[in-house]
Amino acid sequence: MNETYCYTNQQILKTSDGSLPISDLGIQRGYGIFDFFRVHHKRAVFLEDHLDRLFHSAKVMRLDECVTRDQLLAIIQELVTLNDMEHSGMRIMITGGDADDGYTIQKPRLSIIQNNLKPPPILLPESGVHLATYPYQRQLPDVKTIDYLMAIWLQPWMKEKKANDILYHHDQNITECPRSNIFIITQDFKLVTPAYGMLSGITRKNIIRACHKLHIVVEERNIHLNELKEARGSFICSTTKRMMPVVKIDEIDFDLSSSRKTMETIWQELIKMEEAPF
Amino acid sequence: MNETYCYTNQQILKTSDGSLPISDLGIQRGYGIFDFFRVHHKRAVFLEDHLDRLFHSAKVMRLDECVTRDQLLAIIQELVTLNDMEHSGMRIMITGGDADDGYTIQKPRLSIIQNNLKPPPILLPESGVHLATYPYQRQLPDVKTIDYLMAIWLQPWMKEKKANDILYHHDQNITECPRSNIFIITQDFKLVTPAYGMLSGITRKNIIRACHKLHIVVEERNIHLNELKEARGSFICSTTKRMMPVVKIDEIDFDLSSSRKTMETIWQELIKMEEAPF
Repeated sequence: MNETYCYTNQQILKTSDGSLPISDLGIQRGYGIFDFFRVHHKRAVFLEDHLDRLFHSAKVMRLDECVTRDQLLAIIQELVTLNDMEHSGMRIMITGGDADDGYTIQKPRLSIIQNNLKPPPILLPESGVHLATYPYQRQLPDVKTIDYLMAIWLQPWMKEKKANDILYHHDQNITECPRSNIFIITQDFKLVTPAYGMLSGITRKNIIRACHKLHIVVEERNIHLNELKEARGSFICSTTKRMMPVVKIDEIDFDLSSSRKTMETIWQELIKMEEAPF
Repeated sequence: MNETYCYTNQQILKTSDGSLPISDLGIQRGYGIFDFFRVHHKRAVFLEDHLDRLFHSAKVMRLDECVTRDQLLAIIQELVTLNDMEHSGMRIMITGGDADDGYTIQKPRLSIIQNNLKPPPILLPESGVHLATYPYQRQLPDVKTIDYLMAIWLQPWMKEKKANDILYHHDQNITECPRSNIFIITQDFKLVTPAYGMLSGITRKNIIRACHKLHIVVEERNIHLNELKEARGSFICSTTKRMMPVVKIDEIDFDLSSSRKTMETIWQELIKMEEAPF
C-alpha cells in the first residue's frame, strides 16, 4: 500500500507521522470540529456545501481564525494531487490548539487526513438497516463537533438490541443517527425529516434539493416517535452511505417494497447531482 | 526552565515531544477519560481516591484494558522522580486509541503529563467567586470524560455575565461547575451538596469525610435553584482550588462573613487530611 499524506501543524507529512501535541484542546478538552467528504477520482463531492458547514461549525466554536477558505482549498488540492487515490474520504478537523491554561482557545489547529474509502454502491441497497431509538440530544447539534462520546459508548447496547444503528430522540421527537440523518416516507409519498436538534447533513440537504427537482413534497419539521408507526417507509442518509433503507425502528417494521421506488428515484437524482460540474 | 517528561505510547519522553497519533479516538471522536491530582514534594494528594475514580471512569467507558493499577503506580512513581517538581499537577488520560474504522475501541491509549502548579493557599481565600447558572447536563456525569465542549464554548457568555465560573443546573436542580463541585451552607449551618448529575469530586468526597470528623451535618441531595435564596453561604471545591467561597450566584449575594468560620474549620481539616500518611 502506498504511503499517504496528511496535513497538520501547518505542514504536509506522512499520515503515519501525523500527530497532535498532547496539549491540544482537542485532546485535553474534546474541543474541536470537523467535516468529511468523499473524493472521487480527484473530485470532491459537494465540496462547497461541506466547506460552508465547516466554516459554520468553526465560527460557532470560535475556531475560525486558523485558515481562510482559499488557503484551505489550496491545501485540499495539494493533498488530493499528492495522494492520488481513486476513491477516498477527506477529513478536515479544527481543534482548539495549544492552551497555556489548558482551557482558553489561543490558536486553533487545522489537520487534514485522507483515507481510502469504498464508494457507495451504484444502486440503492437491496436490504435495509434496523435502528434502535435512544433518548439523547447532542450538544450544539448544528455544529459538527468531534463529540461522539455517546455514540461510541452505546455500541454494546446497540448490538444487544440487534440493531445496526442508533436513532436519537429528544422530547419524544426523533432527531438523527450519530452519523446519518433520517427521512420518513408518509403514506401519501411525502418525505418528512427532522428540522431541529440535529446536524444539517450535506446528503440530507442535497436530497431535499433533489426532491424539489423531482416535485416530491418534503417537510422539515418535528417527527414524534408515535408518527413512525404510520410511516410507509424510512431511510437514513450520509456522505459515506448516500442513502440506506430502514427496515425496522425498534419494533416497527417497514415493508421496503412499498417505498423502494421513491427512494430509487431520489437515489438516481442524487448521483446525477454528485457528478454535476461545480 | 527544566525539561519535563510525560508518558505516552507506552514510553516516557520529553513533554514537548508528547503527542497522540491523529487516528486516536480521543482526537477523532472526543472519546477519552482522565483524572488529575496534585503532587506536593513528590507526594500525590488523595492518590488512592483519584485512582479509584480513574478506573471507574475507564471501566464505564470500556477503556480499562490498557494498564493495571500496579503498572500505573509504577509509571507515576517513575515520572514523579524524574520530573522532581516541588508542586505539580499530574494528569492521567486514557483515550480510545487507534481504530481501523475510526469508531470501534481496539486498544485504549494511556498518556500522563505532569505540569508545574501553584499550590492552593494556606488560608481560605479572603474573597469569593461569582457564579452564573446555565441549564446543562453533562453526558455520563459520573465519569470524568474529556468532554468540556460546553464549558469552553460558554466562556464568552460567562464573561458577559461578569462571572468567574459557570454553575450548571438540570430540571431546576443545580449540579456542578465545569471543574468544581458546589456546597451550600444552610441557615442552621448544615452543608448540602448535589447528589445526582454531577462528577463525584475527590475534594468533595474528602470534605464530606472532614465534616463527619467535625460533626458537621452534610446532606447529599437535590438542590433546587430556589433554595439558593435561602442559603447562608456557598463554596465550590476542586483539586486545584481546594475550597473557594462563593459570593454571588446570578443575582443572589452571599454575606461571606456569616459562613466563613464554618468554611475555615473544614479547610483546616482538609489540609490535615491531605498531609496524612497513606
